Amino acid sequence: MNAEIISVGTELLLGDVVNTDATIVARALTTIGVNLRYTGTVGDNGERLEQALEQALERSDLVITTGGLGPTEDDLTKETIAKIGGKPLVQHEESLQRLEAYFAGRSMSENQYKQVMLPQDCYVLQNDCGTAPGCVCTTPNGKRIAMLPGPPSELEPMLQHYLIPYLQQDSTTVIHSHNIRVFGKGEGAVAQEIAPFTQGSNPTVATYAAEGEMFVRVTAKAESPEEAQKLCAPVVEQICEILGDVVYGVDVENLEECVIQALQQKQMTLATAESCTGGLVAKRLTDIAGSSAVFEMGAVTYSNRIKSLLIGVSEELLKEYGAVSEQVARAMAEGVRAKAGSSLGVGITGIAGPSGGSEEKPVGLVYLALSDGQQTWVRKMPGGGMVRTREYYRCRAASTALDMVRRYLHGLSVNPEEL
Amino acid sequence: MNAEIISVGTELLLGDVVNTDATIVARALTTIGVNLRYTGTVGDNGERLEQALEQALERSDLVITTGGLGPTEDDLTKETIAKIGGKPLVQHEESLQRLEAYFAGRSMSENQYKQVMLPQDCYVLQNDCGTAPGCVCTTPNGKRIAMLPGPPSELEPMLQHYLIPYLQQDSTTVIHSHNIRVFGKGEGAVAQEIAPFTQGSNPTVATYAAEGEMFVRVTAKAESPEEAQKLCAPVVEQICEILGDVVYGVDVENLEECVIQALQQKQMTLATAESCTGGLVAKRLTDIAGSSAVFEMGAVTYSNRIKSLLIGVSEELLKEYGAVSEQVARAMAEGVRAKAGSSLGVGITGIAGPSGGSEEKPVGLVYLALSDGQQTWVRKMPGGGMVRTREYYRCRAASTALDMVRRYLHGLSVNPEEL
Repeated sequence: MNAEIISVGTELLLGDVVNTDATIVARALTTIGVNLRYTGTVGDNGERLEQALEQALERSDLVITTGGLGPTEDDLTKETIAKIGGKPLVQHEESLQRLEAYFAGRSMSENQYKQVMLPQDCYVLQNDCGTAPGCVCTTPNGKRIAMLPGPPSELEPMLQHYLIPYLQQDSTTVIHSHNIRVFGKGEGAVAQEIAPFTQGSNPTVATYAAEGEMFVRVTAKAESPEEAQKLCAPVVEQICEILGDVVYGVDVENLEECVIQALQQKQMTLATAESCTGGLVAKRLTDIAGSSAVFEMGAVTYSNRIKSLLIGVSEELLKEYGAVSEQVARAMAEGVRAKAGSSLGVGITGIAGPSGGSEEKPVGLVYLALSDGQQTWVRKMPGGGMVRTREYYRCRAASTALDMVRRYLHGLSVNPEEL
Repeated sequence: MNAEIISVGTELLLGDVVNTDATIVARALTTIGVNLRYTGTVGDNGERLEQALEQALERSDLVITTGGLGPTEDDLTKETIAKIGGKPLVQHEESLQRLEAYFAGRSMSENQYKQVMLPQDCYVLQNDCGTAPGCVCTTPNGKRIAMLPGPPSELEPMLQHYLIPYLQQDSTTVIHSHNIRVFGKGEGAVAQEIAPFTQGSNPTVATYAAEGEMFVRVTAKAESPEEAQKLCAPVVEQICEILGDVVYGVDVENLEECVIQALQQKQMTLATAESCTGGLVAKRLTDIAGSSAVFEMGAVTYSNRIKSLLIGVSEELLKEYGAVSEQVARAMAEGVRAKAGSSLGVGITGIAGPSGGSEEKPVGLVYLALSDGQQTWVRKMPGGGMVRTREYYRCRAASTALDMVRRYLHGLSVNPEEL
């Protein structure tokens, strides 16, 4: 089955909102063997939405729209699809009851009722996290249009709990894929190392650059998950062997998930002291449900005063070497570990920019340290050269810190390129 | 000038990567009066890319592609566009020199050279942050195709420094818009309150839902920025007056930017103690360049032990009321303020889920406190009801905490709905 996504919303075309909806839907479709061929965005404009829908219905079996189901006048998705299909909008009783229950006791503006008007004969997708239900309409020639709400926190549960199970009823092929996640080697280099594999057709192997890291995707099609898995497994294994310890995981979401899992397995705990990353490492670790059991404490210590006060970095050290130095990174890692009484401590100090750099200590210079109470390792991101954004340096530093912990926990060299 | 964006990359269709590129480009186009009508995504597939480009060139004056300029074989954008235009790819000397300088002294894989092969007669867009240059090709009938690299950290500087100035050379109309950012009132309610304004045509007024908040966009077209501004200003002012203190800023990026600015203006400092948000507030504050001057200290205190150790929350309090309680939120705010010696302290404690909830204290229950040393305010997010994701609760709690600080600094009621 070929599918495409049409996201509806002028805010997307004005660049006010990032289209995470398309990504969430795309990812879910791959799991059930639906080929997503295109995604597109149109504004809150009935005519252009109609054109986009008509083109999509010509070339795809399934069209999924995101957005435009809300209470306001420029929410036009259901209206436009009802018009194309020649169906009236009718009030859906169950959704009406849910809407009224949601507003129970609070004042409810008149326009809210618009949300429970759905195209006649549609299959209703319940919204467990919001007021606008979704639905699926089938055209006379058997093509389907599924409508999902715009807010990701409403779209995702509706997709997982109602739309995907509905679509799975009549799927015959299965797409099975594995993501080999790599930190510490670029896309170009990896692509050359695994070049022979990228010629295959089932499974297909492709490399992708992501911010600060890259990954290799191995994808097989078959009639059952077991068969597809049989096609993938040997290729994944060989690629992991070729790439070695820059592979931080297969089918893990990200470095932080990998670190939390390894900490849980080893029954060890972690504490962090962050300067230039300002809590980003702590935030990423605590994105993972269950992190509370292994992540003891995070300290965001921007100023020298707080570095001394909170985690005992000595004032002499700060004076002699400066806050952005190997010595202070080391003291931060050791200090926060001691303070928290955790198995491991991480310290990060650097200059994320855009200002604050000097010739000796340029923007982008970051020192990262990991201590286990017996030994402390330090890594340096040299900075200088090509100018990057604040966000880039912060993301890269946070990932490098997480990678050091990952390497330690997996018994690898923490510092593959010595300082 | 009408434009559309085509993003190229199978990783986007597989949902492995969120398409932030389209958002970055969209936002930049609005500032120079280019109407973005569509965005689309195709995989790394020459044929489908060709079709998409041909359709785009029929209906738009300017097509901007993102991605597919890299060193690997599935990077096909320049190749496809050169084919459509009947132009050969030729080596661009200056880009070659930059590439070789970038790899100076390090081993460089052969496929890297592919990146500096550009369509003949194109206008080259220098890449200051990566190895693949972009370019602009002009078709015989005066339409233009601009090619930008995929990684956002490369795309954004190329766009701002080279493509936008190039496009601005011949722009005649200006689009001017203002975003009125709102926290604490939903889109439906706001839309009703400002309904008369949404009927206008110049400026246009539209409401948008964003994750956990909403905003109103006022957009005018004119021949000069001054004229456009004259059209916008009175409408923005009236809408702000109608909505009142839920408006946290006009044309600010987000709550954290607003908080940092207000702290700087008042010469006050802030410290945070976070439990369920796990560093998200600290991360958001330190996303803002210059935050180091006003953000004193962030403590991520998941466990009771660390709450006591680091910011002096008493064990009795934790025992009597539990970690997720009004009393502990209060003690965290007061404790971190005292520890850091800052003007203000924020404490956040709650249950982000998915597990850890109980009937008495459901998932989503969060207490937030703000202390200025003389008084402490507490707000409660009750949780329960509709089940939301961990990310939703964390984002909402972090925004609410930032909004409390914003309200305090602007002399508004910190706690509009009393606990």
